[in-house]
Amino acid sequence: MDRSPRVSDILSWYGADNPGTLTNLARLLEHGRLGGTGRLLILPVDQGFEHGPARSFGPNPPAYDPLYHFELALAAGCNAYAAPLGFLEAGARAYAGRIPLILKLNDHDLLADEDDPDQALTGSVADALRLGACAVGFTIYPGSAHRNAMYGQIRAIAEEAKRAGLAVVIWSYARGSALSKAGETGIDVIGYCAQIAAQLGAHIIKVKLPTDHIEQDAARKVYETTGIPIGSAAERVRHVVQCAFDGRRIVIFSGGAAAEDETFLDEIRAIRAGGGFGSIVGRNAFQRSREDALRLLGRITDIYSGGGD
Amino acid sequence: MDRSPRVSDILSWYGADNPGTLTNLARLLEHGRLGGTGRLLILPVDQGFEHGPARSFGPNPPAYDPLYHFELALAAGCNAYAAPLGFLEAGARAYAGRIPLILKLNDHDLLADEDDPDQALTGSVADALRLGACAVGFTIYPGSAHRNAMYGQIRAIAEEAKRAGLAVVIWSYARGSALSKAGETGIDVIGYCAQIAAQLGAHIIKVKLPTDHIEQDAARKVYETTGIPIGSAAERVRHVVQCAFDGRRIVIFSGGAAAEDETFLDEIRAIRAGGGFGSIVGRNAFQRSREDALRLLGRITDIYSGGGD
Amino acid sequence: MDRSPRVSDILSWYGADNPGTLTNLARLLEHGRLGGTGRLLILPVDQGFEHGPARSFGPNPPAYDPLYHFELALAAGCNAYAAPLGFLEAGARAYAGRIPLILKLNDHDLLADEDDPDQALTGSVADALRLGACAVGFTIYPGSAHRNAMYGQIRAIAEEAKRAGLAVVIWSYARGSALSKAGETGIDVIGYCAQIAAQLGAHIIKVKLPTDHIEQDAARKVYETTGIPIGSAAERVRHVVQCAFDGRRIVIFSGGAAAEDETFLDEIRAIRAGGGFGSIVGRNAFQRSREDALRLLGRITDIYSGGGD
Amino acid sequence: MDRSPRVSDILSWYGADNPGTLTNLARLLEHGRLGGTGRLLILPVDQGFEHGPARSFGPNPPAYDPLYHFELALAAGCNAYAAPLGFLEAGARAYAGRIPLILKLNDHDLLADEDDPDQALTGSVADALRLGACAVGFTIYPGSAHRNAMYGQIRAIAEEAKRAGLAVVIWSYARGSALSKAGETGIDVIGYCAQIAAQLGAHIIKVKLPTDHIEQDAARKVYETTGIPIGSAAERVRHVVQCAFDGRRIVIFSGGAAAEDETFLDEIRAIRAGGGFGSIVGRNAFQRSREDALRLLGRITDIYSGGGD
Amino acid sequence: MDRSPRVSDILSWYGADNPGTLTNLARLLEHGRLGGTGRLLILPVDQGFEHGPARSFGPNPPAYDPLYHFELALAAGCNAYAAPLGFLEAGARAYAGRIPLILKLNDHDLLADEDDPDQALTGSVADALRLGACAVGFTIYPGSAHRNAMYGQIRAIAEEAKRAGLAVVIWSYARGSALSKAGETGIDVIGYCAQIAAQLGAHIIKVKLPTDHIEQDAARKVYETTGIPIGSAAERVRHVVQCAFDGRRIVIFSGGAAAEDETFLDEIRAIRAGGGFGSIVGRNAFQRSREDALRLLGRITDIYSGGGD
Repeated sequence: MDRSPRVSDILSWYGADNPGTLTNLARLLEHGRLGGTGRLLILPVDQGFEHGPARSFGPNPPAYDPLYHFELALAAGCNAYAAPLGFLEAGARAYAGRIPLILKLNDHDLLADEDDPDQALTGSVADALRLGACAVGFTIYPGSAHRNAMYGQIRAIAEEAKRAGLAVVIWSYARGSALSKAGETGIDVIGYCAQIAAQLGAHIIKVKLPTDHIEQDAARKVYETTGIPIGSAAERVRHVVQCAFDGRRIVIFSGGAAAEDETFLDEIRAIRAGGGFGSIVGRNAFQRSREDALRLLGRITDIYSGGGD
Repeated sequence: MDRSPRVSDILSWYGADNPGTLTNLARLLEHGRLGGTGRLLILPVDQGFEHGPARSFGPNPPAYDPLYHFELALAAGCNAYAAPLGFLEAGARAYAGRIPLILKLNDHDLLADEDDPDQALTGSVADALRLGACAVGFTIYPGSAHRNAMYGQIRAIAEEAKRAGLAVVIWSYARGSALSKAGETGIDVIGYCAQIAAQLGAHIIKVKLPTDHIEQDAARKVYETTGIPIGSAAERVRHVVQCAFDGRRIVIFSGGAAAEDETFLDEIRAIRAGGGFGSIVGRNAFQRSREDALRLLGRITDIYSGGGD
Repeated sequence: MDRSPRVSDILSWYGADNPGTLTNLARLLEHGRLGGTGRLLILPVDQGFEHGPARSFGPNPPAYDPLYHFELALAAGCNAYAAPLGFLEAGARAYAGRIPLILKLNDHDLLADEDDPDQALTGSVADALRLGACAVGFTIYPGSAHRNAMYGQIRAIAEEAKRAGLAVVIWSYARGSALSKAGETGIDVIGYCAQIAAQLGAHIIKVKLPTDHIEQDAARKVYETTGIPIGSAAERVRHVVQCAFDGRRIVIFSGGAAAEDETFLDEIRAIRAGGGFGSIVGRNAFQRSREDALRLLGRITDIYSGGGD
Repeated sequence: MDRSPRVSDILSWYGADNPGTLTNLARLLEHGRLGGTGRLLILPVDQGFEHGPARSFGPNPPAYDPLYHFELALAAGCNAYAAPLGFLEAGARAYAGRIPLILKLNDHDLLADEDDPDQALTGSVADALRLGACAVGFTIYPGSAHRNAMYGQIRAIAEEAKRAGLAVVIWSYARGSALSKAGETGIDVIGYCAQIAAQLGAHIIKVKLPTDHIEQDAARKVYETTGIPIGSAAERVRHVVQCAFDGRRIVIFSGGAAAEDETFLDEIRAIRAGGGFGSIVGRNAFQRSREDALRLLGRITDIYSGGGD
Repeated sequence: MDRSPRVSDILSWYGADNPGTLTNLARLLEHGRLGGTGRLLILPVDQGFEHGPARSFGPNPPAYDPLYHFELALAAGCNAYAAPLGFLEAGARAYAGRIPLILKLNDHDLLADEDDPDQALTGSVADALRLGACAVGFTIYPGSAHRNAMYGQIRAIAEEAKRAGLAVVIWSYARGSALSKAGETGIDVIGYCAQIAAQLGAHIIKVKLPTDHIEQDAARKVYETTGIPIGSAAERVRHVVQCAFDGRRIVIFSGGAAAEDETFLDEIRAIRAGGGFGSIVGRNAFQRSREDALRLLGRITDIYSGGGD
């Protein structure tokens, strides 16, 4: 298989990594319907841990079965499937070698919510290796009082993962008592989240789609005086990608639980227009019937591959 | 010895495990009166640590003797006997190879109760191996402020145990200041507890028998709109099993200190009817005379093996 | 040297231990005037750390000298001498092989007392081995907010000590803000302390002599309904021994700073009558002249060996 | 290449270091326009993490690109380029061997500011080695409630770095609730910061340029009675250098975000006049156009090399 | 070189130590003007870290230079020079083998003082070995809320140091919110501090010169009833030496910043008269001119060697 020029280009940004890590990054980038385009569509299913099983899978009961998600990601032509330890353990043998896996190494439940949330370590680099995963995933909460400890955890994990030839995906979600609710998705905060994840050594960075809210006064001054364009969703995506080493790191976006498909697809179009590298689509995929999910995911990959505008 | 088809079926769910762990899982599933049925009856005796010795063993003084429980579990045809370090150390040589053992690795006393309880580490994987145990047991308290640390502990322990060919049993009990007393056994919370234990990599999950209480508002909406049947105990058991990877993980139930035997046996019937994998019966077994205990445990195994309705 | 039948019987309770640990247990049980009787008299001198040197040794100044205690324990025919690192380091070479030593691995001072006390780690298993000790000693405070951490410490230490062929002695003293002062020596609490130490894997358990106070309401109900005899000191000793695996663990008692020798010796008689395994006598031994101490310790060993009633 | 006599002199101060560390120190001292003069100009770019990307790079958008800073440092003839993990990973291969690198091992964001700030560990000695860096950098906050933990971290890191032949740079910035805002740059506090960094084993110490404010009463008495000259900026620099082992450690200064270039250059002149070893210039370099930056950095190196007064 | 009988006698107290540690103890005891007398005069210079450089060295500016102190200790015929990592690193090569060194492994600054002080780890046993030191030094604060953690740290360090053949010096200074200011130097507290350091395994113990204040009520009773003589400074020294294993551990004293030389020398005479093993003299040595310091230190060694009364 020849490597696509775009993937070769992307790999060139990661000059500090060993060939093992580049191999796994290439696996993620070359797999599925978007393989070779430099765009990514990832199916993440950690909501069973995050929101509980009934809230997550009740709307589409086949999704209680861990094998369902492997098959859905495969059928939809996703680049990868990301999940916590238990879900990957349940299907890693049956689906070995059929779809790239991302083992989520920390998780959080809502049984006792906190103002300054933290996550529990639920997997290891050794787990990722024995399950045949291409990458490890880790969530940080910039803004939380626990953030420094979380940064320290992913630092150690990333060092170990890179030595073992794995790629590192960081979910960078602003949370915590120091931020307003609107601030969690403010453009300055999302850009900041992307920068922190990149500085921590992430190969792939996942952030939320930003709004035009600006949370920090010191930042607002710069946005205003330098006239950074943040009026449209596409402009904001472009700015976030800029915040992640001026486009030299892969940044993908999550959309949350959007009400209407067309609204959601408009977001995908904005991500593409703004130079975003793709999407991570969980609830919008597995909380509807398999048929509907494949239809929606097909439209997303159409957009990213240039045929769905 | 041929392996029963049902056990082969169950083992097939654990595709990420090495043959050592599958061997120990098979030992648990093939032992005793329920051996080969895919159902489990386990005798756990950690109440001496949890409630103190007089409250635990005063009602049936022979139970102060650690050898008593090995013998009781053996005579009753239980699949396994689970206890803390001291109790297993006291009988592991005399009963070596006669009944599968589960070493409980953490424990909790009530000498200084807390709103957000935690457990103390009281054993290790190395202890389990030197005592000839088939599995390690670990309690988590979803809902407690200490839960993230507890998840991190069992994560590390489970990784080590699986590498050493042991099975992992998680007691998943909702506790903590964020939950109401009713919430600790609410159907949404118990399902959530089962999911978390499964995601943490448990082979066997122990939860309490749920009530029809719903604790979390966000969950209630889903239960109501999707019409998940939770009216009867059997329906709730079925839902909890669904919450543990749609039946692809072994879920067993504890009954607490039920007042009347018939009430208790009705619970067993409901667990069986709902597709539960069995029971863990402690106080109801060792706080009565050996004769009575064997009679009750015999009726339980009758029900689970299909002859006791 | 033939082993006494009683010692053989006691060693048979510790079936999980390696021959190294049984050898050291036998050394403790076979040494001194009570050697072979299955009873133990141990001289512990950690009060210099606990109460300060003047309060501890001022009443009998020769006791400032660490060699004094080695010699006293030897002359009195004690089974063993227990002390913190510094005291054992000072005499271990001079007394090498002459008397079994127990290295106390944690200690506590009263320079800043707390409602929920903790102890400092002051020695290690490696220290015990290089000093030629037969056992390590460790204090836990059931009832303290720090108890779970303390249980976790002794768990790790005990695992290491047993692997190295040492015996483990746990001082189990109820302390902490959740308990009343009377509760610290209440019969239910002392029984609970003995159970916890046994479950943590202690070979020898040291508790305080209990009173007939009952601290916990849930326990009181059991004591009353099941009629556990706790009226006399001997009955209470018998119950505490029962709480430590029905007599299958060595339980010894401390008497504190009793006012009158006859009162104190009555306690010894009660311990013997109740099936207790012996005493640990510190302040009553080293805070009087050597001559007086030898006389008192002689009377204690007379009682335990059956000749002093 | 002959070594300059001044560099030989400086290296002689570090008699405890192995030849590997001296080699890396020499690389820093011999590189760039100031190579061999004993003066240093370092480009540090950690503001993306510290202040967020828009505040840091918005004023000069090419600076979003990590390669920009490698090139800028090289073109300006800096002695070294210092940055967090992500920024160095992005260019270390392309610029391998072309400019000495300092990997910043801890970082701090402003998403949830605290009265007593701490930093997160974001890199390791192993990272520095695999990236080809000459030195590790670490920030301590004397005055913060977290300072003791920070000192302990750099102690362990410095020991590992020195064993691996790396140099150690400590950013010593007074921060914390115990200090007034003016106190953070008070002459007594800056001198204290320099001393602490030197005692912790730093080879190169970075402090802020001090004012003539005196924060601590006990210090004021000494300054007054002994008549330490602190009236001019040059005198204060001389005193800070004295505070760092009487000139036997390399002390460099940061200027913050000075308003006017001439003011800023006057500070450089004062540092030179006072015997300071150089400057670390970040925002004043990368927040203006490359052309302007090169001009300013050129004037700085002119001053330090004696041609720019 | 023959070993002095007094040194042989002292070494005999440390029967648990290996020949490596005895060799280093002998080096300390045989060096300098007091070599072989069993008395010690040590120059400690950690005030730069503790009080800041200006307060420490401003009164005698040559003392900013780390080499100054090596030379002063050597010229004065001190037994050893003790300092933190940075100061020893600066001179260890130049003075290798010329004067015994003690590496202080923890330090404390006054930039944010606390009611319950703690110290930062600033050096390691490995550092001491690579610098050629004979001993490690460590400060504990009995009375501080952090004391248990500090005891645990020195326990681990002492175990490692003794295994590596180093001697262990403990600075035992009562501090913390539970003590009155007068209590920090009360005779009962100082005796307690000496005992704790001895029990923690120190070879050399440094305490402050006690007053006749008694801090703890429980102790006062013993001092009064047993009539321990504490009226004169010499009597108090004798009692403190008694508190450190009845004279079987080396106890030295610090005098703080005494106003008048004669007062200070009277303290030295009292230490000698009371059987103290010597002094640790810092500020009184390096905060005056070298000439004055040598004169004072000469008078001190005269007193200790018997010629200065």
